[in-house]
Amino acid sequence: MNFEKVVVVGASGYSGEELVRLLIRHPGVELVALTSRQLAGKRIGEVFPKFAGMRYADLEFIESDVAKILATKAGVIFLALPHGVATEFARPLVQAGLKVIDLSADFRIKDVAVYEEFYGEAHHAPELAALSVYGLPEVHRGSIQNAQLVASPGCYPTSVILPLYPLLQRGLIKPEDIAVCSMSGVSGAGRNAKTDYLYVECNESVRAYGLPKHRHLAEIEQELSAAAGRKVTIDFTPHLVPTSRGIHTTIFCKPADGVDAATISAAYDEAYSDEPFVRLLRGASLPDTKNVVLTNFIDIAWRHDPRTGRLVLLSAEDNLTKGAAGQAVQSLNLLCGLPETTGLL
Amino acid sequence: MNFEKVVVVGASGYSGEELVRLLIRHPGVELVALTSRQLAGKRIGEVFPKFAGMRYADLEFIESDVAKILATKAGVIFLALPHGVATEFARPLVQAGLKVIDLSADFRIKDVAVYEEFYGEAHHAPELAALSVYGLPEVHRGSIQNAQLVASPGCYPTSVILPLYPLLQRGLIKPEDIAVCSMSGVSGAGRNAKTDYLYVECNESVRAYGLPKHRHLAEIEQELSAAAGRKVTIDFTPHLVPTSRGIHTTIFCKPADGVDAATISAAYDEAYSDEPFVRLLRGASLPDTKNVVLTNFIDIAWRHDPRTGRLVLLSAEDNLTKGAAGQAVQSLNLLCGLPETTGLL
Amino acid sequence: MNFEKVVVVGASGYSGEELVRLLIRHPGVELVALTSRQLAGKRIGEVFPKFAGMRYADLEFIESDVAKILATKAGVIFLALPHGVATEFARPLVQAGLKVIDLSADFRIKDVAVYEEFYGEAHHAPELAALSVYGLPEVHRGSIQNAQLVASPGCYPTSVILPLYPLLQRGLIKPEDIAVCSMSGVSGAGRNAKTDYLYVECNESVRAYGLPKHRHLAEIEQELSAAAGRKVTIDFTPHLVPTSRGIHTTIFCKPADGVDAATISAAYDEAYSDEPFVRLLRGASLPDTKNVVLTNFIDIAWRHDPRTGRLVLLSAEDNLTKGAAGQAVQSLNLLCGLPETTGLL
Amino acid sequence: MNFEKVVVVGASGYSGEELVRLLIRHPGVELVALTSRQLAGKRIGEVFPKFAGMRYADLEFIESDVAKILATKAGVIFLALPHGVATEFARPLVQAGLKVIDLSADFRIKDVAVYEEFYGEAHHAPELAALSVYGLPEVHRGSIQNAQLVASPGCYPTSVILPLYPLLQRGLIKPEDIAVCSMSGVSGAGRNAKTDYLYVECNESVRAYGLPKHRHLAEIEQELSAAAGRKVTIDFTPHLVPTSRGIHTTIFCKPADGVDAATISAAYDEAYSDEPFVRLLRGASLPDTKNVVLTNFIDIAWRHDPRTGRLVLLSAEDNLTKGAAGQAVQSLNLLCGLPETTGLL
Repeated sequence: MNFEKVVVVGASGYSGEELVRLLIRHPGVELVALTSRQLAGKRIGEVFPKFAGMRYADLEFIESDVAKILATKAGVIFLALPHGVATEFARPLVQAGLKVIDLSADFRIKDVAVYEEFYGEAHHAPELAALSVYGLPEVHRGSIQNAQLVASPGCYPTSVILPLYPLLQRGLIKPEDIAVCSMSGVSGAGRNAKTDYLYVECNESVRAYGLPKHRHLAEIEQELSAAAGRKVTIDFTPHLVPTSRGIHTTIFCKPADGVDAATISAAYDEAYSDEPFVRLLRGASLPDTKNVVLTNFIDIAWRHDPRTGRLVLLSAEDNLTKGAAGQAVQSLNLLCGLPETTGLL
Repeated sequence: MNFEKVVVVGASGYSGEELVRLLIRHPGVELVALTSRQLAGKRIGEVFPKFAGMRYADLEFIESDVAKILATKAGVIFLALPHGVATEFARPLVQAGLKVIDLSADFRIKDVAVYEEFYGEAHHAPELAALSVYGLPEVHRGSIQNAQLVASPGCYPTSVILPLYPLLQRGLIKPEDIAVCSMSGVSGAGRNAKTDYLYVECNESVRAYGLPKHRHLAEIEQELSAAAGRKVTIDFTPHLVPTSRGIHTTIFCKPADGVDAATISAAYDEAYSDEPFVRLLRGASLPDTKNVVLTNFIDIAWRHDPRTGRLVLLSAEDNLTKGAAGQAVQSLNLLCGLPETTGLL
Repeated sequence: MNFEKVVVVGASGYSGEELVRLLIRHPGVELVALTSRQLAGKRIGEVFPKFAGMRYADLEFIESDVAKILATKAGVIFLALPHGVATEFARPLVQAGLKVIDLSADFRIKDVAVYEEFYGEAHHAPELAALSVYGLPEVHRGSIQNAQLVASPGCYPTSVILPLYPLLQRGLIKPEDIAVCSMSGVSGAGRNAKTDYLYVECNESVRAYGLPKHRHLAEIEQELSAAAGRKVTIDFTPHLVPTSRGIHTTIFCKPADGVDAATISAAYDEAYSDEPFVRLLRGASLPDTKNVVLTNFIDIAWRHDPRTGRLVLLSAEDNLTKGAAGQAVQSLNLLCGLPETTGLL
Repeated sequence: MNFEKVVVVGASGYSGEELVRLLIRHPGVELVALTSRQLAGKRIGEVFPKFAGMRYADLEFIESDVAKILATKAGVIFLALPHGVATEFARPLVQAGLKVIDLSADFRIKDVAVYEEFYGEAHHAPELAALSVYGLPEVHRGSIQNAQLVASPGCYPTSVILPLYPLLQRGLIKPEDIAVCSMSGVSGAGRNAKTDYLYVECNESVRAYGLPKHRHLAEIEQELSAAAGRKVTIDFTPHLVPTSRGIHTTIFCKPADGVDAATISAAYDEAYSDEPFVRLLRGASLPDTKNVVLTNFIDIAWRHDPRTGRLVLLSAEDNLTKGAAGQAVQSLNLLCGLPETTGLL
């Protein structure tokens, strides 16, 4: 069998490492290179001791250089780079006809003005943003299959969009009345040596941050607006909690007039009962990050509060898997014509 | 100097242990007895090895028996018992003319029907509920000073009521549009040997629970309604996060028409700038449970989101200190005519 | 292809759950039943929400009943039961000609008197203890292949025996001078609702326990004595540390006269360089439980201290995988004639 | 009353912060200044939000400048600086006649050659090393009272020396056969923004480090040799475990010929039964870091293993309190003629 060759550019961070973990077990593609400026020449098993003794353990990092990437003959390239840097690689690789799955924010926002508002810097590749497909398979599966550039979603956005999308799309909730409270594990901050993310500063600590205008709002509102068919603006409050991985999201919203619980339930079933990575929890079960960590699942539950009339939607995912690398592998599978769950179950 | 004598009834749980920790350092009262059915005869330093070598380490637990409590000649009794059990002790002690500070939910709810709705059982001492004062000094200081029975607030309620009270009282926010998201450390579940609270089940886990009608809503809404001068009904979603102590609360609400940020700010200053245990965070600071753990402070900050018009209120406290035993000691100080911060700073 | 059918008896604890996790990904056998007294009738995905949506999620637990187990036509049975209980199942299943892999301590100790000394109760199946093979593949691979009853090793013993075995076997260290310090995550205590293992009691806590005669010493000394060809008695001090999984073991010992570092190094290479699950760390690397958690690897390093002449041996493993269920699956693979790494890499 | 004035130089790290925490509650001295190059001009309550609202919250950091320190008229100066830097401040302050309590390693080692061997750099103030007193009150109380320069012990050394000292001093154990296994919380690594100490790198991780010649060995062996009256060389293996604070130390050693358990017990009683901060655990109790965290206690227990004849000594302390700042405050009390427990119980 002739496996598609793939490369991971910028594999030194947590998302890159998670991509490696998933590709080690992926039976349908071949990882042919990883790149990293500072790690070039080192082997995977050396850089990530947890992968020693496994498939690819002896694969060496190469320079993050477009020519060297092209020389690998890979057909699909993952970019696991900081935002702003991804563009440098995406442009030549796309021009060379390769398929690119970008895990940064660079191509997620279609409206360049919105990008510049939220990220506070100029966008250098509006034509690529226009070309890209937002890589949320449960929403854009068809487009992803034929995409040349996939903008893989952020961790918080995945946890917020998936519970809300089916309800907004069907007009079942009021788009003007959505408030979101998310709690993330510390790996969401990346492998950056900053005092704020030291063990002692995060342990026994719960704190909000990034208020009131977190960057991820840009893509969340873009997708929710598309679902609702009108501009949606929400409140979003992220919190840092002492876990390594996992995001729990709690959403307060209001049903549209006359919408009852059965209608909500039916909408979720219709949207997600055939989705391999969305688990609708039944009965008394509520999402718990420990049940999704190291998996590509997102668990969703909801409750109607008869006292206030509000809906509370809850989701849990692994920020590095369904919220980053796992979702990117879903897109890889779609791009390669493989079953979408390949290597992910 | 003639110190007031105090007794702690039911000192085997986390709140009771925290009371002991605080009373060890309290220069104005004398702890003369602790009671516990199963620990009678054991010394404090034996039951709580962390207190060995400290003041009171050799004090022995006695039986949880009213006659024995009366025999101690104590003037103030803390009840740190499960709800439902506190009544058995409160009635005879109050009748005997002692002052009682109860940490359970038994006397917090003035409307017995509301108690029965939320707690699912009959209330056996409506006359004591009527008599009691809700022990939140920032709100009921004057009444606490003259109370015979103080119903010390729950941990979540303290973290929810204090940020909202000054705004509701001044009509600055819309009472019908309040949604609360709280995150608590595991000590909130008590020292109960249940599988759900094992280390392995709580570590690397974030989960909501008790939806949509947590018991603490009864007292939250009672106090918020009093503040607003009308019935307030809210949504409240508690979460369990992997810390031992600490509650972080995030509240979404909407300013009343025409209310601006300066007015909110002035209201908080007016309400709390002289409060010794409420810290209004300035500038970029946001509450973090690690800054309040093992203290009696509640840290409060807020943000106005110009994009949605909503307010986000944030608070952090130690669920066992300001949320339980520390607040009870504040009431003790008020009852005894001591400076309110005695033993707490 | 005709897959061997397997059953897990007593699948409600952490070892049983870990077996399920591994069997879900095992391509060479078919899990046909799980048993549990209290869970009979429930589906895997319901009991373990993390496995919902995966292979076997709809498999129902059956009664822990020998006749029902036989009726499944399974050829290999895992027993994940408390010690003492395993015998009830092992005897009839072995008599019926099935292969049994027992994760309890019941058949690990060949000398029944030693068992009774360490476990403080009579041994009820000495003939099965005699028949069994100690399931440490790196030491007893050949016997395991032909065993009818595999006594899968304990978690601490695996972490202690593997670093010491090659050195004792070759006479490179002094058998009378071995002291062991181990640190285990809390899952080692099982899913038992005991106060000692509550989150709050284990978090921010490091403590020794089980001194000086932990039960696991019986099997450790049995195997080390076999390696050394003489009776070996050691000191073993286990500690509980706040992680969910993982054991780190640090061993102090002394080289035999005239043994130098190169000889130690060569012995490890000879013993383990072809072992798929033993990783000998090179250079400055030292074992870290986070690198082995959720894998079947044991990482081993050692240092010679020229100042004292002592050797320090270090190992890290996942107590539930290499220390329990993963090692049991290694034995399964050997019993079934499958490549030993099947489903484990 | 005329309180002694004290200054903390280099108060931005964890030890400095812990000093502040303790001085806030210290009734017998007055903190008049903190210094820090990068924090000068900021208030304590701003730098350490946990201290806002407490005594000293409004005290401003000043420049780390000797003239400015002298200008405060303080009589005792704490140096909480990296090793190597402390000398710059200690020399002029000592020359000016002030008393200095140094928390770094600069003056702990009497033999400058040993310092240079273990720290790998030249010692720049041998005359101060000669002058200094090793600030372990349980051993050097008398000298500390009259010292001008106190070299406050390291965290690991305190946890190792105190259990061993009485036994070595009385010739009850064999000095050539001591092996030590310590486990430390991550604050021991300081508030340094290094990848190794990020939350994600330390959480769910247990690992040894600094083998086989950790710097703290220099002072450990200096003190143990003094106790034994002969050169003592030991093995010492430190481990990092996922807690914020706390050190647990486990020591393997051998009784001298003819020494029985009663003699060991009597030695400990003789040495420590009157020590306010050493708790000898009785019965089945074993040290647990959660019982000593945020206190100045060290808990000690021991077991004799009749099977091997070895002794296992165990201790637990808070690395930042008894292992650093608390012990330094003990010395402060001795220097000032205050009861030794002032501000520490």
